Amino acid sequence: MAKTPRIVILGAGYGGIVTSIRLQKKLRAGEAEVTLVNKHVYHYMTTHLHMPAAGTDHHDNARVRIADLIDERKIHFIKSTVQRVDPVHKRVILEDQTLEYDYLVIGLGSEAETFGIPGLKEYAMSIKSINSVRFIRQHVEYMFAKYKMEPQRKDYLTFVVGGAGFTGTEFVGELADRIPVLCRCYDVDPSLVRIINVDASPAALPPDMPVDLVEYGMDVMRRKGVQYKLSTPIRECTPEGVLLGDGHFIRAATVIWSGGVRGNSLLEKAGFEVQRGRVRVDDCLRSPQFPHVFIIGDCSMVMSPEGTPYPANAQIAVQQGYNVARNLVCSVRMRPMQPFDYDYKGTVASLGRGEAVGLLKVKKVKGRKAALLKKLIDARYLYLIGGIPLVWKKMIFKQGAISGNHHVWM
Amino acid sequence: MAKTPRIVILGAGYGGIVTSIRLQKKLRAGEAEVTLVNKHVYHYMTTHLHMPAAGTDHHDNARVRIADLIDERKIHFIKSTVQRVDPVHKRVILEDQTLEYDYLVIGLGSEAETFGIPGLKEYAMSIKSINSVRFIRQHVEYMFAKYKMEPQRKDYLTFVVGGAGFTGTEFVGELADRIPVLCRCYDVDPSLVRIINVDASPAALPPDMPVDLVEYGMDVMRRKGVQYKLSTPIRECTPEGVLLGDGHFIRAATVIWSGGVRGNSLLEKAGFEVQRGRVRVDDCLRSPQFPHVFIIGDCSMVMSPEGTPYPANAQIAVQQGYNVARNLVCSVRMRPMQPFDYDYKGTVASLGRGEAVGLLKVKKVKGRKAALLKKLIDARYLYLIGGIPLVWKKMIFKQGAISGNHHVWM
Repeated sequence: MAKTPRIVILGAGYGGIVTSIRLQKKLRAGEAEVTLVNKHVYHYMTTHLHMPAAGTDHHDNARVRIADLIDERKIHFIKSTVQRVDPVHKRVILEDQTLEYDYLVIGLGSEAETFGIPGLKEYAMSIKSINSVRFIRQHVEYMFAKYKMEPQRKDYLTFVVGGAGFTGTEFVGELADRIPVLCRCYDVDPSLVRIINVDASPAALPPDMPVDLVEYGMDVMRRKGVQYKLSTPIRECTPEGVLLGDGHFIRAATVIWSGGVRGNSLLEKAGFEVQRGRVRVDDCLRSPQFPHVFIIGDCSMVMSPEGTPYPANAQIAVQQGYNVARNLVCSVRMRPMQPFDYDYKGTVASLGRGEAVGLLKVKKVKGRKAALLKKLIDARYLYLIGGIPLVWKKMIFKQGAISGNHHVWM
Repeated sequence: MAKTPRIVILGAGYGGIVTSIRLQKKLRAGEAEVTLVNKHVYHYMTTHLHMPAAGTDHHDNARVRIADLIDERKIHFIKSTVQRVDPVHKRVILEDQTLEYDYLVIGLGSEAETFGIPGLKEYAMSIKSINSVRFIRQHVEYMFAKYKMEPQRKDYLTFVVGGAGFTGTEFVGELADRIPVLCRCYDVDPSLVRIINVDASPAALPPDMPVDLVEYGMDVMRRKGVQYKLSTPIRECTPEGVLLGDGHFIRAATVIWSGGVRGNSLLEKAGFEVQRGRVRVDDCLRSPQFPHVFIIGDCSMVMSPEGTPYPANAQIAVQQGYNVARNLVCSVRMRPMQPFDYDYKGTVASLGRGEAVGLLKVKKVKGRKAALLKKLIDARYLYLIGGIPLVWKKMIFKQGAISGNHHVWM
């Protein structure tokens, strides 16, 4: 081969960071030039964001400095935001430079899917990044402070969460745990606070949960004071609150939207064929249009044997990262690639402190046992990317304070 | 005497709480019926509010539950807000009841004096209560969270403090200490943050400070990054920032006004003759119009031998509380009263962590020594109202966390 192949990885989410770590491990010196581009200097664990969003854990426990995960002598890291992907000319335009590639891995994540509901984009917050969850946490606490200055404004104490699926449920569980603490801190009567979880679908929790686990989960939530408005779409979001499909208007100073995600819009702009922003990839996770482009995580769509797309989540993204890294090594060594074979292990949804429900293949789990399992899943991922020291730092000796009162992070 | 005299004390600030505690100690059982009215269930230390306002200390360290300070078998406590004082008919109208009195003590504190500057009342915050400082602390932190969502909005990181006197200086000193912590927590470049202290007068710090201490204090502040705009009045405050007397407009999402206070407006409404809301009291701290009404603290004006009014502060309010309690005991025992004799001990102004300047009669103090002295003054007051246990609780085993992440207060 005339020159060293150039591999560019866009995004250091689950898919991108695992691809990078695996490439670093598997490639021999000089086999390829690998560049990782990410808009922050840190990787964050999206599945953990519901806790810092509610304020029940510090946001630093949901992120890891990229420099602590990769060896920058082996992988070149660029902190920049991708402006445009140009798969025709095999290049990527960043804020202040252009990268050329031989192989591209796109793991640029998702955007909120608002289904065209007016006002959601403008007035609802979403749980999507360290910045956004730090903002939500502060916003929630600020509402308590504001209420004490204007006690006639009951809407400051009304929290509407649109979407009662996986993310919505996990967030609502934490928020319900946080409210009593905030009430004590701000001298607020807890009976004035309302958490309303709205969903167009008739049941809360992820759609693949069995009915008995859904009932268990909703019971746990209701005991914490969560009100459900199911089979009720949001018709409009305004600065004053939300208008529901049944004509009711809920006055609320806080609306959080977790009703769905779509793939990063850069893909569509780059000319990829997409469905809800996601590219239906081939067996080896490549774009059917541009076979030098691998697409993973929330930007990709992988079909199950039943012919429906697998839900985009951390589990599939991590496995895709492993597969892409292996196939990139095969590619640079001119060996045949191996198709992606998703091993779906199940789902565990947290319901707040010490409570969760889950389905592992066909086995159901709930309560403390499920909550512990959830922690083990988190620990396993940290171990996978950063070994024992990372589990130690983020889960055992973790940051305790919620607010800006500590001196080091990560 | 036909019946037990009724003493009503309005306000549990420095003056009111000290009056109550001293009456409780000095009155014999059955000598008088004492009622204390306050709008919160706690007393707070106004001189400590600059710290929770900036977020450098927990607001619970600035307040004490009234039930922990008074014996409710001896003093009847009513949590209510005073609607109107009617000195002609010797009664006080509360939210849901009317109290009749034989002797009234008014210690209803102050309101911000905005000198008619447009927009200050609407758009500036002020350091005046637990609610207001909890709000300021959250507002400041919220601005950092918002900035990370909209990095083009540099005005989120601009903090204007109007008034560079005692309160303004103490707050700015703490805020400057807090900024680096918030910058680390929110990944914000500290060079983007501006703290601008504006005052119409040509010098910062309290007006009675000698020139060399003022220079020392301003040097300390400037080293922390505080910018001064002196000899510069604020012409107008808007939702976007402040218009200065020199025509400059500072875009700022946070404006805090500490430019002055006036007595509670209830006094003027009740028919008392006032100057800036304060009643010029007689030798025994009584209203010249209504001799059964004692007026203390920020509502009262006491003239110095030089013929100028003493500044309203905690020191004079506490001494007034002692005097009024003694004179009330004299009154119910039909003995002559003793005139108030103010023993002005001096002023110490904090400049943030480990720094202060002060003038004790003619002795100047500065630096660590002054900061320690400031702590001793705070400790002495806590000792005075609550003994050693209160010093222990608020200054030694004090609340550490800033945010709503703890379970008990006080």
